Amino acid sequence: MTHSLRPEARGFSPAAPRPSTALLTDQYELTMVQAALRSGAAHRRCVFEVFARSLPAGRRYGVVAGTGRLLEGLADFRFGGPELDFLADHRIVDDATVDFLREYRFSGSIHGYAEGEVFFPHSPVLRVEASFAEATLLETFVLSVLNHDSAIASASSRMTVAAGERPCVEMGSRRTQEHSAVAAARAAVITGFSATSNLEAGRRWGLPTLGTAAHAFTLLHDSEEQAFAAQVEAFGAGTSLLVDTYDVEAAVHRAVEIAGPELGAVRLDSGDLIEQAHQVRTLLDSLGNTETRIIVTSDLDEYAIARLQSAPVDSYGVGTQLVTGSGAPTASMVYKLVERTDDDGVPVPVAKAAVGKTSVGGVKHPVRTYGTDHVAQAEVVGIGRAPTFEADGHRELMVPLVVDGEIRAEHTGAEGVERARRRHRASVDELPATATSLQDGEPVLPTIFS
Amino acid sequence: MTHSLRPEARGFSPAAPRPSTALLTDQYELTMVQAALRSGAAHRRCVFEVFARSLPAGRRYGVVAGTGRLLEGLADFRFGGPELDFLADHRIVDDATVDFLREYRFSGSIHGYAEGEVFFPHSPVLRVEASFAEATLLETFVLSVLNHDSAIASASSRMTVAAGERPCVEMGSRRTQEHSAVAAARAAVITGFSATSNLEAGRRWGLPTLGTAAHAFTLLHDSEEQAFAAQVEAFGAGTSLLVDTYDVEAAVHRAVEIAGPELGAVRLDSGDLIEQAHQVRTLLDSLGNTETRIIVTSDLDEYAIARLQSAPVDSYGVGTQLVTGSGAPTASMVYKLVERTDDDGVPVPVAKAAVGKTSVGGVKHPVRTYGTDHVAQAEVVGIGRAPTFEADGHRELMVPLVVDGEIRAEHTGAEGVERARRRHRASVDELPATATSLQDGEPVLPTIFS
Repeated sequence: MTHSLRPEARGFSPAAPRPSTALLTDQYELTMVQAALRSGAAHRRCVFEVFARSLPAGRRYGVVAGTGRLLEGLADFRFGGPELDFLADHRIVDDATVDFLREYRFSGSIHGYAEGEVFFPHSPVLRVEASFAEATLLETFVLSVLNHDSAIASASSRMTVAAGERPCVEMGSRRTQEHSAVAAARAAVITGFSATSNLEAGRRWGLPTLGTAAHAFTLLHDSEEQAFAAQVEAFGAGTSLLVDTYDVEAAVHRAVEIAGPELGAVRLDSGDLIEQAHQVRTLLDSLGNTETRIIVTSDLDEYAIARLQSAPVDSYGVGTQLVTGSGAPTASMVYKLVERTDDDGVPVPVAKAAVGKTSVGGVKHPVRTYGTDHVAQAEVVGIGRAPTFEADGHRELMVPLVVDGEIRAEHTGAEGVERARRRHRASVDELPATATSLQDGEPVLPTIFS
Repeated sequence: MTHSLRPEARGFSPAAPRPSTALLTDQYELTMVQAALRSGAAHRRCVFEVFARSLPAGRRYGVVAGTGRLLEGLADFRFGGPELDFLADHRIVDDATVDFLREYRFSGSIHGYAEGEVFFPHSPVLRVEASFAEATLLETFVLSVLNHDSAIASASSRMTVAAGERPCVEMGSRRTQEHSAVAAARAAVITGFSATSNLEAGRRWGLPTLGTAAHAFTLLHDSEEQAFAAQVEAFGAGTSLLVDTYDVEAAVHRAVEIAGPELGAVRLDSGDLIEQAHQVRTLLDSLGNTETRIIVTSDLDEYAIARLQSAPVDSYGVGTQLVTGSGAPTASMVYKLVERTDDDGVPVPVAKAAVGKTSVGGVKHPVRTYGTDHVAQAEVVGIGRAPTFEADGHRELMVPLVVDGEIRAEHTGAEGVERARRRHRASVDELPATATSLQDGEPVLPTIFS
């Protein structure tokens, strides 16, 4: 039931037809454009940055995800007939603004942390440079994509870390909105999940997909025996049989009788998984099915996975806790204006000054520094210019994603997922050992403004 | 900036082009169909039911939402060329199954709680009757829609209850996936939110939309004065000005100077909102702007709204906590086979029997009962047949949504939202007074199987 990353899926191949993404936004992005077109400030060159002020309580690192989806959606961020008619008919913006939106194409540049990269509080994970009008229109869409996908990836990275060499499979589609499910599957695979149950994610980005049967399939038949036989008939002995509809022990006996020594796997979806895994492993071995794997799938999170590591489990199916970010369903990233030109075209750093929610003005240049042991030490962020170092042992974190309106295609589609997956593994491997602890603590790297 | 429910938007008017929803599903739904087509059981008549085993801890009631979206998506649940090519090329299912899927149209019936209705643990909120193959294919999509939208509605209903007569505005798009944002806006309006910032939700269902400006608009200009003047120039004195970019007191003075006594509103987005609201109200009144409203918008949830009720606030903008379900981002609903025919066409009730996660077999008939004071008393659920009562004081909860493949259009589009909004208000009004307490407690109605 699995298939690996498919070469023909490389390069972005979205569903035809592709709807516009331009109305997936807050009204105030458009009204600000209208007011700025009137005041003349709409064409000031601006730099917006995306960052999170903090990580969810206790988390050691966050994971940037959604960048590829963001670029794919940016390609469809166009105001066409239905969008313009809506805006005009309901007088959401005036005629001059409708005319501006009709011609809207993002012609600026976007740099950011490579997808899959880890981040920390105040890491400037994305930088958008364009006129005010062009850049402000993207705010809501950019944040929706990054906040969701990064929240999922930040949780799912902890799950694959906890699972070690054992594969994790994403199967949470039913516990999140139908389109979030597609995005969540992608974020999971980027952070090391081996497959997803979500077919649209498989189709869109060439992700490996997987699935066999639910309890309903057993209940549909007159007996568990008939159900198992039907499944083995359809998919061969290598399939995985769900053994907890009635009595687990009896079901394992039945499964082995029907599928023989080639039975691929049995799945446990309820009860005390640790105890059952031990019992089922002993039983399978005693029946000669030493190669039959045990899959567990009941409301797992990173902590449950860690506890199950001592049990004879071969792979984990993760659902609800993955797609809801394991307690942190959004990454709390914000999109802030940090620099804009004045009437003479001179760049001016800007920042909100009122109580709370403060931010740092000026364009940020983030660099990760390393010790002589090649372990990451800090996020050093230059303001206005790149920080300078006397020796090696540092890495610039910003990569070009969009240059003068041209989307860098290597970050999109199946290739983007594969690159992000590699980047993620490499970035986590560089972190101090405490990063992979599930114990609550401070972010493992400090963010230092220089 | 607002517009009310628009008559021309009644009747569902989705974005053209409309992509297929058929791959927004778990692979095992399709592999089960393949195995059941082989075993011959695919055509057995089945009844699946959707229910939640529990409410999130402490919650007094849940709210059914997503029904209209579910029916809209069902109309697009078709396997076309791109979907079938994907399934065939990657051998996810065999040719016979691909042929079956090519012709797939849901021809069964769906009944459920009317959208907006309140529910309790084990309330059978949806019933799908069709062949196994037809009904099982819908499982993931049905659950994705209902679990997400019901989670949001269950949280947002508490917010409007806490806000009483003060309007709540949904503005959480940036903190959830871009398509979840559209669905969340709809769920919020169903539960009494007066408007949303999300434009696609406005376009799709005729929801009132709203928005003016962010801090970036102020920072873009050379001074707060210029920014306020630009906004008033574009939208008139009735606009709402964001007054916490620099110094709130100075900003309020400036706003009144520029917009005059007609200034519509000022918005506070940071700091101690209760204290600031009092100060700003006093200041506005002293300047003669007694009609200028105060809007607050900083990380509000139902508890923050309740605390702010004693402050001179006119409306609430709610974001993160709304779109993440205020601590409960999924409604935990499941889709379970409860009855299927045998080889003679005789219906047989079925249920999983293993430890934990048990469910009750047989078709459920839910009725809400009332006391002589017209206050709801219990959810009485007949198994296999409707419960009978000697007197009045009860209401059947199931309404037809799809009859023999025909979608009841009144539940979709803007009309569906308006009906759900009315239903929600009426259902909450019938509940015992403790329902609207924010104190943690048990569900306000017991679910009694009869």
